[in-house]
Amino acid sequence: MKSNGLFDITPVRYTDGQLMILDQTMLPGEEKYIKIETKEDIWEAIYKLRVRGAPAIGVAAAYGLYIEARRYEGTSIERFYDYVCEAASYINTARPTAVNLSWALRRMTSGLEAARTDSPEKGKAWLLNEAEKIRREDEQACRAMGEYGLTLLKPGMGILTHCNAGTIATARYGTCLAPIYLGQEKGYDFRVFADETRPLLQGARLTSWELDKAGIDVTLICDNMAASVMKKGWIDAVVVGCDRMAANGDGANKIGTSAVAILAHEFGIPFYMYVPTSTIDMETPTGDDIEIELREGEEIYKMWYEKPMAPEGIKTYNPSFDVTDHKYITAVITEKGIVRPPYDINLKKITENKVK
Amino acid sequence: MKSNGLFDITPVRYTDGQLMILDQTMLPGEEKYIKIETKEDIWEAIYKLRVRGAPAIGVAAAYGLYIEARRYEGTSIERFYDYVCEAASYINTARPTAVNLSWALRRMTSGLEAARTDSPEKGKAWLLNEAEKIRREDEQACRAMGEYGLTLLKPGMGILTHCNAGTIATARYGTCLAPIYLGQEKGYDFRVFADETRPLLQGARLTSWELDKAGIDVTLICDNMAASVMKKGWIDAVVVGCDRMAANGDGANKIGTSAVAILAHEFGIPFYMYVPTSTIDMETPTGDDIEIELREGEEIYKMWYEKPMAPEGIKTYNPSFDVTDHKYITAVITEKGIVRPPYDINLKKITENKVK
Repeated sequence: MKSNGLFDITPVRYTDGQLMILDQTMLPGEEKYIKIETKEDIWEAIYKLRVRGAPAIGVAAAYGLYIEARRYEGTSIERFYDYVCEAASYINTARPTAVNLSWALRRMTSGLEAARTDSPEKGKAWLLNEAEKIRREDEQACRAMGEYGLTLLKPGMGILTHCNAGTIATARYGTCLAPIYLGQEKGYDFRVFADETRPLLQGARLTSWELDKAGIDVTLICDNMAASVMKKGWIDAVVVGCDRMAANGDGANKIGTSAVAILAHEFGIPFYMYVPTSTIDMETPTGDDIEIELREGEEIYKMWYEKPMAPEGIKTYNPSFDVTDHKYITAVITEKGIVRPPYDINLKKITENKVK
Repeated sequence: MKSNGLFDITPVRYTDGQLMILDQTMLPGEEKYIKIETKEDIWEAIYKLRVRGAPAIGVAAAYGLYIEARRYEGTSIERFYDYVCEAASYINTARPTAVNLSWALRRMTSGLEAARTDSPEKGKAWLLNEAEKIRREDEQACRAMGEYGLTLLKPGMGILTHCNAGTIATARYGTCLAPIYLGQEKGYDFRVFADETRPLLQGARLTSWELDKAGIDVTLICDNMAASVMKKGWIDAVVVGCDRMAANGDGANKIGTSAVAILAHEFGIPFYMYVPTSTIDMETPTGDDIEIELREGEEIYKMWYEKPMAPEGIKTYNPSFDVTDHKYITAVITEKGIVRPPYDINLKKITENKVK
């Protein structure tokens, strides 16, 4: 893909020995990077959603682990390994749902052990190299998902998306927005509808921001308007990302995704989930086994508002994710190809060569 | 129903010759009434949603028309009648979707003509009396809908509602919340889930406020969480209001209602629409014939926020209502009884005695 203003923006940037994270909570008002210097910094950045999106969380965690490892001053390789594992366990507690967090950290720690480096310095170099590899692989995976995904779309289509699985949710290009960027270069002239995605407004703040920046025709709607635009015949396909896909094809993604899938099913619109193999968790049998993060109610009635938008002390229920049943998913787009039902069989096939 | 703190609050209050409207845009922070003295005042109050909810709009418009009529200073009954009709036409332009607005205004003007009062003073008295009647009838209709609706609910049920069809959307008691208040008195201990209802947050600001005030167990969720609470098995029934029901049973209601209906259908949960016969429009054949109000995009990304929540100049689509297909509506609750499919036949029967 062409380099344009948008693709100069990367959510996780490691240059001149410094790890910088784009603070996505400040978008679209401010494009501000924060510096990560400790495991507490990266934990906070993930927990507070300064970096978010399953693939970007994986990349950020890998670099963050290296940054913390770099602080180790001893000479014992065994103690260094313990230090790194402890830091990884700590960072892993930042958020529970996206599997990329634990996947990237496990890849870093088990890879370090297997590499049998004979000094902490070599171990640190190995970790940095592995983090770079995770980032590069994610970028390549996104490009590949873009290519595969584009084969499912036609010029002029209306496309609905929920939350943000775009360039700033990944190393670069995005998962479900990658085919849109690719199509844009080829003059496909998609009309994209972005659900605002309450309560944290990733659709309004991030997706409409990055699509607009890339010159793509984007219309912002509230989540509860998806059925209306579908009924009007404006939507030809739904594309969404994924935070964790179970072995049977059930996919956890941002809260509201499952409703969009049910509506798409009702209106006969294909529903495509973009899932790099790093997000497929074959050790989780079904969606029921995925832990769903619950967050503070203040995100709903207070966080963005000038004044509280509900009575003081009102009870809330605020799950960050929901699980889309595999029966509503038309196809799963991975970097290795498009997976169709039956998912229990076909996901197993496509993940067999996955880096553990 | 018992008089409690909540039912002392009426959205439209006429006392000592003064018409006062509860400014619902200030809730839940402030309970402030504004005085209506001209047709422009009532137009503004309806247009700006200071008074909203189909039945309350009808009541407010009727009183508002009387207030304007009262300003007529001449002695000609013909000119008085023209003056009233002109004012009614003007007030009728405030909002297009809720049929109660035009229904109440037509009832006032055609009733005035039929009454053949021989002086403007008597005409004014007739109008005030008719406005009082519309208010009283709406209050009675809500009580009756509460009684009928309660027969469909059982103690301990989890009930989901969208937007606000409560006491402040009507003369008193509400339409779809009436059975909840009635059940509360009988110790039914409902657990109510209120969709926040973007973009104007009537669920967060109004429904959770009035249910909480009445001591009812209410949990606030974002619109996109409805599928999650349904899937968890927490919802036994969905209750919503209606702004206009077509002759075939298609019902226009607050944006997002149709999605809730489709989800309820998918999860096997009954979906009840509360529709006083004043809201049934037999002259509109189907939902496709209902005009849907479109509002400013700023409601989505700017209105309540401390800072804009989307890029400057972003395109939006902001319909205020959507149409729920009659096939998703389990039953229609009116003040004359419960209507079941086939709606084209049964709505006709129930509206035959409706005051035109």
